[in-house]
Amino acid sequence: MSKRPIIIDTDPGIDDAVAIAIALFSEELDVRLITTVAGNVSLDKVTYNTLRLLKFFGKEVPVAKGAEAPLVLPLQDASNVHGKSGMEGFDFEEPDDHLLLKENAVNAMYRVIMESPEPITLVPIAPLTNIALLLKLYPEVKKNIREIVLMGGSASRGNKGVMSEFNIATDPEAAKIVFDSGLPLVMAGLDVGWKALVLPEDSAKLPALGEVGRMAYCLFQKYRGGSMKTGLKMYDSCAMAYLLKPEMYEIVETYVDVELHGSMTAGCTLVDLKGYLGKPSNAKVCLDINQEMFRQWFLERMAKCI
Amino acid sequence: MSKRPIIIDTDPGIDDAVAIAIALFSEELDVRLITTVAGNVSLDKVTYNTLRLLKFFGKEVPVAKGAEAPLVLPLQDASNVHGKSGMEGFDFEEPDDHLLLKENAVNAMYRVIMESPEPITLVPIAPLTNIALLLKLYPEVKKNIREIVLMGGSASRGNKGVMSEFNIATDPEAAKIVFDSGLPLVMAGLDVGWKALVLPEDSAKLPALGEVGRMAYCLFQKYRGGSMKTGLKMYDSCAMAYLLKPEMYEIVETYVDVELHGSMTAGCTLVDLKGYLGKPSNAKVCLDINQEMFRQWFLERMAKCI
Amino acid sequence: MSKRPIIIDTDPGIDDAVAIAIALFSEELDVRLITTVAGNVSLDKVTYNTLRLLKFFGKEVPVAKGAEAPLVLPLQDASNVHGKSGMEGFDFEEPDDHLLLKENAVNAMYRVIMESPEPITLVPIAPLTNIALLLKLYPEVKKNIREIVLMGGSASRGNKGVMSEFNIATDPEAAKIVFDSGLPLVMAGLDVGWKALVLPEDSAKLPALGEVGRMAYCLFQKYRGGSMKTGLKMYDSCAMAYLLKPEMYEIVETYVDVELHGSMTAGCTLVDLKGYLGKPSNAKVCLDINQEMFRQWFLERMAKCI
Amino acid sequence: MSKRPIIIDTDPGIDDAVAIAIALFSEELDVRLITTVAGNVSLDKVTYNTLRLLKFFGKEVPVAKGAEAPLVLPLQDASNVHGKSGMEGFDFEEPDDHLLLKENAVNAMYRVIMESPEPITLVPIAPLTNIALLLKLYPEVKKNIREIVLMGGSASRGNKGVMSEFNIATDPEAAKIVFDSGLPLVMAGLDVGWKALVLPEDSAKLPALGEVGRMAYCLFQKYRGGSMKTGLKMYDSCAMAYLLKPEMYEIVETYVDVELHGSMTAGCTLVDLKGYLGKPSNAKVCLDINQEMFRQWFLERMAKCI
Repeated sequence: MSKRPIIIDTDPGIDDAVAIAIALFSEELDVRLITTVAGNVSLDKVTYNTLRLLKFFGKEVPVAKGAEAPLVLPLQDASNVHGKSGMEGFDFEEPDDHLLLKENAVNAMYRVIMESPEPITLVPIAPLTNIALLLKLYPEVKKNIREIVLMGGSASRGNKGVMSEFNIATDPEAAKIVFDSGLPLVMAGLDVGWKALVLPEDSAKLPALGEVGRMAYCLFQKYRGGSMKTGLKMYDSCAMAYLLKPEMYEIVETYVDVELHGSMTAGCTLVDLKGYLGKPSNAKVCLDINQEMFRQWFLERMAKCI
Repeated sequence: MSKRPIIIDTDPGIDDAVAIAIALFSEELDVRLITTVAGNVSLDKVTYNTLRLLKFFGKEVPVAKGAEAPLVLPLQDASNVHGKSGMEGFDFEEPDDHLLLKENAVNAMYRVIMESPEPITLVPIAPLTNIALLLKLYPEVKKNIREIVLMGGSASRGNKGVMSEFNIATDPEAAKIVFDSGLPLVMAGLDVGWKALVLPEDSAKLPALGEVGRMAYCLFQKYRGGSMKTGLKMYDSCAMAYLLKPEMYEIVETYVDVELHGSMTAGCTLVDLKGYLGKPSNAKVCLDINQEMFRQWFLERMAKCI
Repeated sequence: MSKRPIIIDTDPGIDDAVAIAIALFSEELDVRLITTVAGNVSLDKVTYNTLRLLKFFGKEVPVAKGAEAPLVLPLQDASNVHGKSGMEGFDFEEPDDHLLLKENAVNAMYRVIMESPEPITLVPIAPLTNIALLLKLYPEVKKNIREIVLMGGSASRGNKGVMSEFNIATDPEAAKIVFDSGLPLVMAGLDVGWKALVLPEDSAKLPALGEVGRMAYCLFQKYRGGSMKTGLKMYDSCAMAYLLKPEMYEIVETYVDVELHGSMTAGCTLVDLKGYLGKPSNAKVCLDINQEMFRQWFLERMAKCI
Repeated sequence: MSKRPIIIDTDPGIDDAVAIAIALFSEELDVRLITTVAGNVSLDKVTYNTLRLLKFFGKEVPVAKGAEAPLVLPLQDASNVHGKSGMEGFDFEEPDDHLLLKENAVNAMYRVIMESPEPITLVPIAPLTNIALLLKLYPEVKKNIREIVLMGGSASRGNKGVMSEFNIATDPEAAKIVFDSGLPLVMAGLDVGWKALVLPEDSAKLPALGEVGRMAYCLFQKYRGGSMKTGLKMYDSCAMAYLLKPEMYEIVETYVDVELHGSMTAGCTLVDLKGYLGKPSNAKVCLDINQEMFRQWFLERMAKCI
């Protein structure tokens, strides 16, 4: 089986770091490009974090810097959750810049997609600013995009606002552009992210798996103030899990829209399971996850990160 | 123990009919007034249905007619669910009008509240138009209102729109007025309404309980196209259940706001469990229900309806 | 000719004071009731000001207190413009309360309208909270309302927000209810209010006209920080001018809607002169005013205030 | 004096055609690039029209194709005003494609701006989709942009909706991005566009001026159904007039924001002359125009188009 070519769009961020590790060390995926976008912390920090991760992993994947703010809204980052640098708790080596492209993220994605003989899968695990700009500026890329598998949104409640998830609510207009794009979409949002837990007993096994496991363990000690009691939510790994083991999900094809205009609900995703909005399906939505299968899969994947 | 005086504001509607029966035949409650409001079906129909129910029950409770439309939005009723008359499936006798007050609902509520030596509990199981008008027109009633126990809203998804519940979304501005009123509020919404189920085996026991049970049974056969397979949702009885057996609920005190401005989320209740909105609590929200306890309670209560 | 019976709904306020004087001293109008509403300053202050004015004028008109806040929004008054009391600059005598009804404004309006053999004209020169509550609570009054002649709104720019006028923007939901009511409406808004000027040379003539003229002169010295250079805008008198001398206006029949949902445009009136909204006319809108005719009329009217 | 280098972003459209002619035949301006965007009619048509114009004018200016739809909203064009092709009424020769760049509009603008030794002035006379994408994708261009002189917006009423102008309301999110960009902005909107009239007697002089005048004359006969009685509005020429003869304008520096969320006011520009929004100035707004000076200037400029 040939490897599936993907581009990861990311804002590391602790759970991004783990998701990137899983993708880079999987034999099924071919990470052609990593693009960065302001989200969890600033663009400079997420780009620096990406380069630190690649050096640490010893992987040679080109990196391109993307948007430093959402399309319309000002950036409100999540450094309260991810720490000042976005990846506190582990002592990474200083990276050099040899992997950093001169091109910006959108142009790099455009080039990689257009040059690829096989259709590319986009895996955004961050606000959708870069992806929206790509689709608006270069609509011709749609022909060579296989699927967009994104972490974001929710069929119920939120984690940035009462009813809105962080990645979507950080740039609702970008999300609207992506959901309206006509491309095959997979949404792995809070409905599965909240249940994709690494429990303390799982985390305790990580250091023994090797250096990457030890790094994850260290980051987890700091994540959300080190609160490991109820398990840590591996939001971003949910996108990788869809690519690598979709059978852990309960998935429904439905119509998803993004609220742009509420005074308290902007960025809420409307996952229209009952057809209130009367529109044809535009996404596969991961509504539930087999938690045991995820735990086992997560440890297996971390064990491959060597 | 003295009976707790209440006013029911309602739009029967099949689940309203059952909730009203439970309240009228309970020894703990003293139903001082029933007010009607456009909602499930038109004002004329819900008022007629209320009078038909009282005649059938043989109860002498005054009835007052309220708002024929929401404050700002046009009425969009639910006759698709409740049938053309709102109470299809049972052959009620024609009522006379001797219980129908000349006063409108707001003035009747005002009078009953102000004349009562004990504070009154309002139990709205319909759009909140009447209650909002009462509170705006006669703010002095607040001193003699003990609590508002309402059926409406949701901490997650909706049943009128993707994220909005029928009673709140039918008149979002009225709901906002009620939630902002400063009165003690209890919200029993879809989080419990969707689980407050009468199963087919429960329904089958109803005819043997007497005439009221038989009526409920007959209405249930028509409700939502007679689909009884997965159980029928007793939304409105959830408000009565709070008054009569609150221990069946998991309840949290929190801040609830109502979205007025979304293009697809108007009428969404924001149940702010994590404090995103930074406001002090204004409501007790029923977040979960013991389903077995509810089933048993429901049958016990229906058995008292004689 | 019989006098035209009117009810004034008001929030004095300096230009309200002058408009009320003109109405009370006109032989063409029969002021049956004055109702008060929070707006320029708080409800207590505007009611007190109304009673002070009536004592000063020596007129026995019943007064009823209305809403202390808008329907949905919190009150944002205009005490920056009208001074702390709402009528700074003149030393009024203390009034007693014999004109103050026990009824609230809505009930008093209801009674006066229903008891009148002739249809009543409502003249709201304040936020439309009371009028909206009246129409929602007692829709039967519509049969005996001849017309609503209101000061409020704008066909272009605003004076509370960039695009919103004070009376409408203070309670947009109430305004929406009034414009959607189906009643004959006349809107005299900023398009004429900004041109209905009392120039310094006109103002200088007021004291010689008698006590009421002297009062107006004194209030004007304080109004908007005493800035008389470019003339003072007699917003509220524009409603009276329509009743007493409509020929000073250029009037168009058109559809007017009220924006409820903009983040910066809530309360903007959409005066749809070109039919963009595709709705039938619901109002006569005063689009222009003969300024010389207004100046002359104003002085003539003030001269009658004795 | 060296020529001022500009890029025109356009959607011809009849008044665009005239504005482009004026720019191309002026000795003061150096049109380095023309970019096209969907607006008055579809992207294909406006690009074809641009190429037809350049062939007709005999000018060798590179053309780049831009966005085929607004950022978030679906395209609602103005073919009702501009005719099916966008330029009805004159028989243009078929152009070839030698002026059409392979690059898209955003990349072409980026290249031209970055390569220019002098700062470039952007002159968008169309929806701001391309400009917004440029500024989001390549924020580094801001250093070499002298000014954005745009036709769009209004300080009062609208021409696409009651309160919204066509170019802004077609892509409100793009306009918000441009007004928030921090770049020096000049807004020539409806306040001057509605007064920048070519009267029938002016139009009658055009054919005698030469081929370009004859073309303008022919287009004008069809524009807005040929209604020439009250004069035709030269909206887009207002941007050129600012560059070439700013003294015809009354200009104010102020803060301008764009409403994104109203149900009827999305795309309304809030020109905050009184400081209601409390923000520092971000634009020079042309509030009034000397109509006689414009008429004379227009004919003089058309006379140079040979």
